[in-house]
Amino acid sequence: MIQPDSYVRSLLKRSPGESVTARGWVKTRRDSKNVHFIQLNDGSSPVDLQVVLDAGVVPEDVVAKITTGACISVEGDLVASMGKGQAVEIKARALTVHGTADPEHYPLQKKKHTLETLRELGHLRTRSNTFGAVFRVRNALACAIHKFFQDRGFMYVHTPVISASDAEGAGSMFQVTTLDLQSPKPADFTGDFFGKHTYLTVSGQLEAEIFAHAFANVYTFGPTFRAENSNTPRHLAEFYMIEPEMAFCDLKDNQDLAEAFLKSQVEYVVNACGPDLDFLAKWYDPELRKTLDGLMNASFERITYTEAIDLLQRSGRSFEFPTQWGSDMQSEHERYLTEEVFNKPVIVTDYPKDIKAFYMRGNDDGKTVAAMDVLAPRIGEIIGGSQREERHDVLLQRIREMAAHGLREEAYWWYLDLRRFGGVEHAGFGMGFERMLMYLTGMKNIRDVIPFPRTPGNAEF
Amino acid sequence: MIQPDSYVRSLLKRSPGESVTARGWVKTRRDSKNVHFIQLNDGSSPVDLQVVLDAGVVPEDVVAKITTGACISVEGDLVASMGKGQAVEIKARALTVHGTADPEHYPLQKKKHTLETLRELGHLRTRSNTFGAVFRVRNALACAIHKFFQDRGFMYVHTPVISASDAEGAGSMFQVTTLDLQSPKPADFTGDFFGKHTYLTVSGQLEAEIFAHAFANVYTFGPTFRAENSNTPRHLAEFYMIEPEMAFCDLKDNQDLAEAFLKSQVEYVVNACGPDLDFLAKWYDPELRKTLDGLMNASFERITYTEAIDLLQRSGRSFEFPTQWGSDMQSEHERYLTEEVFNKPVIVTDYPKDIKAFYMRGNDDGKTVAAMDVLAPRIGEIIGGSQREERHDVLLQRIREMAAHGLREEAYWWYLDLRRFGGVEHAGFGMGFERMLMYLTGMKNIRDVIPFPRTPGNAEF
Repeated sequence: MIQPDSYVRSLLKRSPGESVTARGWVKTRRDSKNVHFIQLNDGSSPVDLQVVLDAGVVPEDVVAKITTGACISVEGDLVASMGKGQAVEIKARALTVHGTADPEHYPLQKKKHTLETLRELGHLRTRSNTFGAVFRVRNALACAIHKFFQDRGFMYVHTPVISASDAEGAGSMFQVTTLDLQSPKPADFTGDFFGKHTYLTVSGQLEAEIFAHAFANVYTFGPTFRAENSNTPRHLAEFYMIEPEMAFCDLKDNQDLAEAFLKSQVEYVVNACGPDLDFLAKWYDPELRKTLDGLMNASFERITYTEAIDLLQRSGRSFEFPTQWGSDMQSEHERYLTEEVFNKPVIVTDYPKDIKAFYMRGNDDGKTVAAMDVLAPRIGEIIGGSQREERHDVLLQRIREMAAHGLREEAYWWYLDLRRFGGVEHAGFGMGFERMLMYLTGMKNIRDVIPFPRTPGNAEF
Repeated sequence: MIQPDSYVRSLLKRSPGESVTARGWVKTRRDSKNVHFIQLNDGSSPVDLQVVLDAGVVPEDVVAKITTGACISVEGDLVASMGKGQAVEIKARALTVHGTADPEHYPLQKKKHTLETLRELGHLRTRSNTFGAVFRVRNALACAIHKFFQDRGFMYVHTPVISASDAEGAGSMFQVTTLDLQSPKPADFTGDFFGKHTYLTVSGQLEAEIFAHAFANVYTFGPTFRAENSNTPRHLAEFYMIEPEMAFCDLKDNQDLAEAFLKSQVEYVVNACGPDLDFLAKWYDPELRKTLDGLMNASFERITYTEAIDLLQRSGRSFEFPTQWGSDMQSEHERYLTEEVFNKPVIVTDYPKDIKAFYMRGNDDGKTVAAMDVLAPRIGEIIGGSQREERHDVLLQRIREMAAHGLREEAYWWYLDLRRFGGVEHAGFGMGFERMLMYLTGMKNIRDVIPFPRTPGNAEF
């Protein structure tokens, strides 16, 4: 097993003269007279470790097996490197080939592949420079998120994946069942595993509210599902969401937390994965560093939906979608606000209640709710949240109003109970993990920031 | 929002004289002449903060609302406490009731409830002392696990929840579908969301192996599913698994890692949640601390399956289940070995290949595979793992042998590819998160260590 001091990343920082063992997969081999140069990586670093293998150290038939994709171990001494980008290289004393990769068949040869091609090779794309960088950033981002909340005393909560709630009648849910699907009879859910119709969760928020009413500050971080037939670069059927939920919290606190949360994620990843970001910037998004710096250093603008609509109407622009009060904001509107008006992230609050969810707290004007969307330049909405309706009578009335949209009062007995017993003002938000990763990596297709994307027609690997 | 220095846990550590605000839910209120004593908690501590409220600070009708379960905020000064178990209490200058909890209807009154009753109250049991302790330990354990692997440079990987693999023909999987279940026609999966029959994952191991072949050391930590109709205190339909997978790793390294992993989890939780463990020990398991110390301090015994069978056969015991070579070990056997023979955790290795999974590495004897189970006193198997078969020809032959058991060679094309291109000896294991939590908390029913248990007939909340 590779120990912490023996990853390629660690070896590159150690001193000439040390005797070490390096392990990993061959990126390339280059031969000159009497010496072979091997670029080796174990996935820990965007920079390869160069192996210098003098002719004769291993037999020629072993050298022949050291091709792109082969797995090897090398024992040797670290020596100062002449190559640029690395202080040391390893001079091999012994070399073992664990597994070959026949150049006739190994799909990942030296030439550059399109991301589309690599998607078909989900079991091998992980070894490419691009996906090495992406998945190291993904790992760092997960750590950043846990650290942010744990440092603030938030409790991590696993909300259920299988749910009997049909999500506010919102539709587009996967069904979960043990019934015999080949049966010619219509389903009888009383005979199903849970004795009722069940689904994959679309949000852990309502259950997170339960925990917020006992532990005050909590967050979820888990898989979430949409059965929408959306074949776009921004949609997955299975993705990850982070949903903090805070008691004793109003919309102002909620905005403060969201802003601090976004900045802390960027800061963590910039510190932990600098060389990976440089690689991604070089190949995928020359503006990446500027974008990230912009988010870290900006003081987010905060405006109401009504103010936003006013800005759009007075812009003199002709937008494709309507900008009347009451209509939902579209990508073109979000980009105008963040990129042209303010040139930084914008938090829009207090949306019309008719375009937002039933659980959002009603404002005194009777027309708007205490919702918030955080919009960022170039990507649009990155966080959506709200203060929740904590007034039992107001919530009950709202649920009844929404009966026509499929809300069933009896399904919300426990959600209403939270308002009957020790209720309190509370708020929270949700952030799509992969959307944030696209922002951080500059990758343009969400399928390239998750290990094994699930999309319509695709559940391979 | 409660800031880190204002949780009850934090306030209890601050100094007399400080002016603070405390927020939370009322555990109890006790009245004496001219003064009310309120036990307050925000879920951050097994110890309540005592609020001393002099008569007249708030009107009598407000005092009347300060009942068990009510949500309040208190402004006041910390003063030295006469009560035992706490250094400070808060003398109230002002008090606000955010939400009442009508004693006529609030289900969690002062009297002790059974765990069974509390399970029906999944939205409120979180406020009880027991579940406060359990979920704080759960949070700490999740942190311990990430820390253990991140400190060793392992990459955290999200393996897919929705899978088209039918899990080695092992059965007992939930199906995931968007087909109309009320249709009188048999399912046509080409028209399903993914164009094929899909399931909820039973393990992320095979996908973790992909990542181990690029990043060397990786781990998963996510939800896993079994559709078994097992109504026992040890089974859930939805539970969490941790599955590390390491390249350049044999069975010896695998055992070392598993032992270090278990010890580090216990150590972390003992340090982070001492008072919670004391509470749980007092009410649920007087032997808890001894059990945990035993695991931390023991050097795990390591024996082969063949040696274990020999010990069982020579024990002079009459076991209910057979102890011939080739039969699976049962709970009674595991307990005999861990509690009577060795009195400490035992790692049993090299099981007969016919009772283990197809992917385990064949030993030279042709009869056994490089499997390992970690057994602990009182709970039995806590970890199961193996070195994986990295030899392409051997694996292919094994898959073909298992065709009769439902293994389809074509479904494993990418798994076989890992052995064709840069394969290497590798190993890994799986640990059930909730099983470990039962061990750490002394709770006897697995439904009491997960926020919202899913079991046959039950998907409430």
